[in-house]
Order: sequence, then C-alpha cells, then structure tokens
Amino acid sequence: MPQTICFISDFGLDDAWVGICHAIMHRQCPDAWIVDLAHQIEPFDIRKGAAVAAAGVYQLPDAIHLVVVDPGVGGDRRDLCLVAASGAWLIGPDNGVLLPAAQRARGIERAYALDPARLHTEKALATFHARDVFAPAAAAIACGQDPREIGSPVDPATLVVGPFAVALRDGDSLAAEVIEVDRFGSLRTSVTAEQAATLGLPGVTLEMVVGHMKLSVPTGRTFSDVPKGEIVAVVDSSGWLTLAENAGSAYERFGVEPGAHVRVSALP
Amino acid sequence: MPQTICFISDFGLDDAWVGICHAIMHRQCPDAWIVDLAHQIEPFDIRKGAAVAAAGVYQLPDAIHLVVVDPGVGGDRRDLCLVAASGAWLIGPDNGVLLPAAQRARGIERAYALDPARLHTEKALATFHARDVFAPAAAAIACGQDPREIGSPVDPATLVVGPFAVALRDGDSLAAEVIEVDRFGSLRTSVTAEQAATLGLPGVTLEMVVGHMKLSVPTGRTFSDVPKGEIVAVVDSSGWLTLAENAGSAYERFGVEPGAHVRVSALP
Amino acid sequence: MPQTICFISDFGLDDAWVGICHAIMHRQCPDAWIVDLAHQIEPFDIRKGAAVAAAGVYQLPDAIHLVVVDPGVGGDRRDLCLVAASGAWLIGPDNGVLLPAAQRARGIERAYALDPARLHTEKALATFHARDVFAPAAAAIACGQDPREIGSPVDPATLVVGPFAVALRDGDSLAAEVIEVDRFGSLRTSVTAEQAATLGLPGVTLEMVVGHMKLSVPTGRTFSDVPKGEIVAVVDSSGWLTLAENAGSAYERFGVEPGAHVRVSALP
Repeated sequence: MPQTICFISDFGLDDAWVGICHAIMHRQCPDAWIVDLAHQIEPFDIRKGAAVAAAGVYQLPDAIHLVVVDPGVGGDRRDLCLVAASGAWLIGPDNGVLLPAAQRARGIERAYALDPARLHTEKALATFHARDVFAPAAAAIACGQDPREIGSPVDPATLVVGPFAVALRDGDSLAAEVIEVDRFGSLRTSVTAEQAATLGLPGVTLEMVVGHMKLSVPTGRTFSDVPKGEIVAVVDSSGWLTLAENAGSAYERFGVEPGAHVRVSALP
Repeated sequence: MPQTICFISDFGLDDAWVGICHAIMHRQCPDAWIVDLAHQIEPFDIRKGAAVAAAGVYQLPDAIHLVVVDPGVGGDRRDLCLVAASGAWLIGPDNGVLLPAAQRARGIERAYALDPARLHTEKALATFHARDVFAPAAAAIACGQDPREIGSPVDPATLVVGPFAVALRDGDSLAAEVIEVDRFGSLRTSVTAEQAATLGLPGVTLEMVVGHMKLSVPTGRTFSDVPKGEIVAVVDSSGWLTLAENAGSAYERFGVEPGAHVRVSALP
Repeated sequence: MPQTICFISDFGLDDAWVGICHAIMHRQCPDAWIVDLAHQIEPFDIRKGAAVAAAGVYQLPDAIHLVVVDPGVGGDRRDLCLVAASGAWLIGPDNGVLLPAAQRARGIERAYALDPARLHTEKALATFHARDVFAPAAAAIACGQDPREIGSPVDPATLVVGPFAVALRDGDSLAAEVIEVDRFGSLRTSVTAEQAATLGLPGVTLEMVVGHMKLSVPTGRTFSDVPKGEIVAVVDSSGWLTLAENAGSAYERFGVEPGAHVRVSALP
C-alpha cells in the first residue's frame, strides 16, 4: 500500500505554502497520498501542533506524520525524523512538537537528524525550510528511502521535551492537564484511552478536578449518552479522555484554558 | 470513470478529522477522487450542511456526496445511504441534512440504513462515527459495492424531514425562504433554477417580499448585469434564485437571516 | 512529469465551489495534480490574489497557475491564458491579478483570450465561470492542449495593469510598496530577491522608509538571525524582501497597510 503523509503546519490557508509543499512532495513521490490534518494552528503554537499530531498518530499509527510548527525556523535546532514503535514516522523540528505523538505511538525506536545536503531539492532563491528539508524528507520516506540516507542517528534522550506529556498515575488518581480545546468546546485531557480504561470507562462516574473546580462526571461511549446540555467524559476520536457538554461547549461552561491541571479518579 | 466523493462536514479545519477520513477512504478505494466541498460549517448547523450538499448535487449530479453534520452522533438515529434519481449517492445521518440535496437530485429512488457491522473497518479504540461508518460507506460505494451489501432498505417516507424544502407554488407566486447567506453576502432562496425559469428569468423584473420588505428586483444572468451597488436576482451556481448586490453584500443591506420568508412573483 | 495546477481563488472554504472546480479538472485531466494555494482571499481582493500568485510562480515556475479573483465575473472583461518566459502558465481574468506573477515569471511570452465555446464543458443550468471556463482551460493545458485550440492571441500590451509592480530603481534606492501582510504579520515589499541581492543582502544594513517611518534594518537569511522581538529584513519564501519581527508581528508594530510606499537603500 502506498504511504500516507499526514501534513500539519501553522502555515494557515491564506498563503501559498501548504500547496507548495504538496506539489514538492507529489513531484518527488507521486505514489504518496498526502492528507491535510490541520494548517490553521496559531503561528508558533507548539502545544496545538503536538495535540493534532498525537490525534493523527492515534488514528493512523502506521502513517508518515509531517509536523511543521517551527518558531525557530532557520535557527540552529535540529530537523528530526523519528521512527516510532507503532510504525509511525514523525518528521518535524526538534522543539517538542513531535514528542506527544511519539509517546502515543508507543515510543521512539530510532531518531535521526536530517541532513539538508542529502535531500536533493531544487532550490528557489530564498530559504523555505519546509520545502527544502521537511517535505522532501517526508517524500523520501514515503518512497522507501532509509532514514540513514537522509540523516544521522541521534540519541532520543537528547530531544527537546514536549509541550505536554501523558498523565501520570498518583495513587488512585491520574495527574493530568488540559491539552487543548477542540472546535466543539470539548476539553481534551492528557489521560489516554488505555489509562481511562483502567479507571473503568465507560460505565463509571469520575471525580475530575479541573483547575479550581471539583466535578462529578458521568462517563459514556459518546457525547449523546447524556441528555443535551449535560456534561460527560468520553474517550473521543483523538484517543484522549475528553470532558464535553452534549450539544454544547464545556469550554464556555468552565472557562478552563489549555495547560490547566486535571486530576481524575473513579468514584466508588 | 472513477467515482468522485464530495465531502462535507462540520469538523472544521483545526483538527485532524477531515484528513483522517480522507486517508481512510483512500486506503479503502484508491481510485476514488475525494474533493472537499466545505468543512467549516458551524458545528451542528444542519441547514448550512444541507444547503452546501444541495449545491454540490446541483453541480455534480452523478457523484457520491458524503455529508457529516451530525449533532446526534452516537445516538440512536440511523445512518443513511440514499440513491437519487439523478444518479447521485447521498451518505450521512438521518437528521434531514441529506433531504434538500435529494430533492434537487430529482428525489430518492432507494434508501438504505447502513449497518456498521458490515463495514469492515480497522477500528481505533474510540468511536469515530465518520471514520467507522460514513467514510467507509462512501468508499465502498465508490468502489462499486451494492448498497444492499452494507445496509438494509428503509422506507424513504420514514426519514427525518429536511431543514428546508424547495419553494411551493401559491397562485402566481412562489412561497419560499432564505436558505443561506453566502460568503459574498448573497441571499439564496429556496426557488430552484427550474422554478425561476417559469417566472421568466432572466429578463423580467420580480416582486420579492423578503422578511418585512417588498422589493422590486431586476433579474440577470450574472451579478454584473446591473451596475455596482445595485441589487439583482440571478440563478447562481448553487442552482437557487439568489438576491445579490453587485460587488456588495445583500445581507448587510437587508439584514435578513436564513429562514426568513420570501415570496416571489413576476412583475408584469 | 504530469502537470501541477496551482489553484487560487476568493471562493472561501465555506461553499462548494473549490471542490466543484477540483472535480471538474480531475474528470477532464485525471493525470493533473491539483494543489490549493489559497482560497480565503477576501472577496474581490485582486491585490492579495496577485501576491499569492506571484509567490506561487516564484516557488513553482513551471506549473499552471489558476487564479480566480474576479469581481467582474460575467461582465465583458476577457478570460486569459498567459504563457510566461519561465514556463509558467497563468489562467484567470483580465483584471490585473495575473500580472505580478507574470512579471516574476520573467514576463509574458504569449497571451490568449479564452473562448468559452471551445471549452467543451458539460453545463449546469446556471453560469459558473470558474467551472465553465477557467478550470476547463487549466485542465486542457495540463493535458497538453495548445492554447490556440482554446483561445485567440491577444496583445500583452492591452492587458489590464496589475495591482502592484516590481520595485523601480531610483538612483541608489528602490522605490517600492508594501504588497501584502502575511499570516505572521510580516510586511512583504515589492523588492524582488534579485533586486535585494543588488543591495548586498544578506549581510548589510538597510535604510527602509515605510510609510512615514525611517528605519535602520539589519538583514539576514532567516527571521531567527536576529533575537526574538527584533526586526529584520529577509527575502522570504515568496521571493520578496520582507520586513519582519522575529517571533512577532511587524504589522502590529508598525501599523502599515498594503499599498504603503517603501523606499529601500543600503547603509554604508
């Protein structure tokens, strides 16, 4: 099966960059299938980029994930190609944006620093890092090149840490955080599907401390397992435990921002 | 000719879902050509989803139209695959969002309730209805499967009604409504191209009662048939009679919202 | 290599039009690879459409560039197909939107007025110019048709002038303007990469008069060549000299709008 490249960036859709990268990748590897996951991430919002990439890896654990959210573009940070245990490839800058996805993909097996000189790109006059390094690297991997042909091994322990990490167990509860707010106003926490299952989801009531609020929250399989306007905790399509209001916005209801602390335990 | 899948949703472009569905469909039916019609529909706005789908069917009457605007996701409503008389396929939830498109596609010939168990999808841990049911169904139809292989016949008369319907003739006039406001501020009414032709368009002056206003409106073939800043009624690319201001916004001028009553007749 | 079609419009992403044009082009020329450069251009903003097209041509000088920003749609202006010296094709209305891109593509070699009657499109009932003329023309060129088969030669000197032009040399300085503000708040000027090189970039300090301000601006190869929060002039990926603030917004800092005069010279 030809490779799928999942493309995430903070380029927005008002400029030419996303399309240029599509064209570059397609010319280099016509058999790859490129899908856009999100490009309207706020400029330089590494947290949001990491959250979308983690959802992408959760749903497509064997695809190539190209993640360009890169405030330090052109600086001296490394360009990475990570091979995850799930079979996912992660390509992007060494600023933490790939790390939550790598964690969701069962961890990093091998890490490489890309070498621009070995990516034979036809250069325009001005530097365009995604065009010259990241997109060609994704296309090279999609067409079967070995990462050692385009980069050098690096020690995963030296990578910049991610903007958030999977929740930690602390006795009977999980110490987590709000990783992002989605379009529907649902609050995604850093509790994974697997961790949620250990709490007994679905079919249990949770105690959730979210910021300064302590809530008693029913759980379900989908948002509509509770009446409209009521709150529910579900493992949503991103693979994270998510606090939602059925047909409403938990974000507007609770006013909690990404980064807020969350503590979750099962009520008896 | 390989099938075209027209994809509409309220997923937005800030999350991974649209791209995930593309990847799922492409893997299942690589020959299908997937085009995005609109994904920034306000969450749960069935009216807007239905309007875009109706425009899609008008322009591509033989394509597969996948319409995921689904406030009741995961609830007990049915998942539908409709075969329209025009040759169009309509796939989406039974909440009315497919009905205006079906009406524009010369009516429903056959209706099926999709059976998730017969869509052999590789499941992620959490439920993602579009990924697990709607997208695989569209891909199955695109690759030539018979709808009876993935669903069971249902009586079209039992379907949830649409958020709006085609205008009704009432003596010499047509009783209609504003179905949506487009990006350019034009007001689309539920008067079809065929109904507009019976009024004598183009080349006639219309009396249009829109909300509380009674207007005398010249008609044309295109917006620029009148001077800049003047109003005109045309059958636009969506196939609906549309009240527009050339190089301006009829919406700002009249302040009328979707759902407003409209009455149209030809002035002598 | 199959042709790449770069598609730019002011259709937005809330309506069906972009996807319809994709479907039309794909059906007519399945081997073409269509990439979206930008569709959220403000309705009728010819300047922004021209700026994105110029960036597209700079990065993909041998592609087909389809640019539909067309306030006069349906009026009596001509529909154009331009052949540029770089090998680029430019297709769009005769309202100036193609001209800056043509200038960046080393000038117009031949110009044609498209003849709708020779584009054998299956028509919907209502006129949709992009669907009926521009998209079929792009697909025809992508599949190797000669422009004389779909249009008639016109004199390039008769074309409507562009919304901006490349900077002019005036003694030791360049008389330019701000052509657009990008998503990151950077101010793009009409000074080309080649002109910037004649000033000594990178590695020189510029005097830039921008609107009413006179600035002394260091230059670099990338934004991060200066500390965060400081200004820098670089030739960015669009191929224009761009005034930026590293990890910030030059637009918010200086409050200058597109169209503002700019004068650039090298400080000794």
